[in-house]
Amino acid sequence: MKNTVYIISGPAGVGKSTTSQTLVQEFEKSAYISGDDISHIPVKGRGLPWLDQESLDLIWNNILSLTSNLLDYGFDVVIDYVTFPSEAAWLAEKLKHRDIKVVYVVLLVDDETIVQRDRLRPEEHQMGERSLILLHEFERDGSLSDLNKLYTHHYSVDQLPEIIKEIIHNEKYLVRL
Amino acid sequence: MKNTVYIISGPAGVGKSTTSQTLVQEFEKSAYISGDDISHIPVKGRGLPWLDQESLDLIWNNILSLTSNLLDYGFDVVIDYVTFPSEAAWLAEKLKHRDIKVVYVVLLVDDETIVQRDRLRPEEHQMGERSLILLHEFERDGSLSDLNKLYTHHYSVDQLPEIIKEIIHNEKYLVRL
Repeated sequence: MKNTVYIISGPAGVGKSTTSQTLVQEFEKSAYISGDDISHIPVKGRGLPWLDQESLDLIWNNILSLTSNLLDYGFDVVIDYVTFPSEAAWLAEKLKHRDIKVVYVVLLVDDETIVQRDRLRPEEHQMGERSLILLHEFERDGSLSDLNKLYTHHYSVDQLPEIIKEIIHNEKYLVRL
Repeated sequence: MKNTVYIISGPAGVGKSTTSQTLVQEFEKSAYISGDDISHIPVKGRGLPWLDQESLDLIWNNILSLTSNLLDYGFDVVIDYVTFPSEAAWLAEKLKHRDIKVVYVVLLVDDETIVQRDRLRPEEHQMGERSLILLHEFERDGSLSDLNKLYTHHYSVDQLPEIIKEIIHNEKYLVRL
């Protein structure tokens, strides 16, 4: 079977980490890349990735390098990061010489749900307005195909296995170059 | 000034993380790579790095890729990991086409100190015997030059700035190929 790179995207607070960390357990040999962790490797002199293109480029180059190495060693890879369609396409393009699949899922919920979920987080992790702004940024992004969107507010927490199945088995999420 | 890659090594419990995280603050544009964090990117199907050569190779390839990208973007890099002389030499060799410096410091203490420090850690982070075994492994390693050893048990905690100065300014720690 072909190795697969899963890009689990969506606004902050939508459940990317929980989904990714459950997904990564589904395979025999698999790795989990947290884009947030990668973004914190630069300590001094780094910009904010959502404001500074050079910082964002470095993050994506680092994610690409790790993904390439992991594929070389036979791992499926789950990437957990706020990823826009152009970034998913860039990554898929960089990997296209390999006989692998790239899956791009943008987790989304309605406005009410994202605000509620943000309030349930420990205060120091609450995103406030930024969750909602990011949600709208994804929804308004004309380059994001409906095929890659996965609305999860109709699922309850104990239905996570169904979301995982959907991500693994529904071919509509495949990036086609 | 040339960019520098600092490899901060030594057995578990010797103060690598504290030293590295203080060191990384000394530069204008610098990054911190935790080898332990990198070793946890593979989730399923990974071996223990101290038992499994393939797992260890992947970790070092990942550290090399991140370091190369960071150097491309003008960062000094601090690598915090249990690194043996052959691994430091491998990394320096892979980076030798670049106009940079590689510094390799193996932090060491006496037996008594490492046992004491291990006991001061939260129980779930205590290494027990393994700290001492690793310490002896470094001390017995014939390929480890005395030049790269930095014994720290004569320093008190508030002398960390002196250790940092020593690492930055004493050229004896430079890897020469």
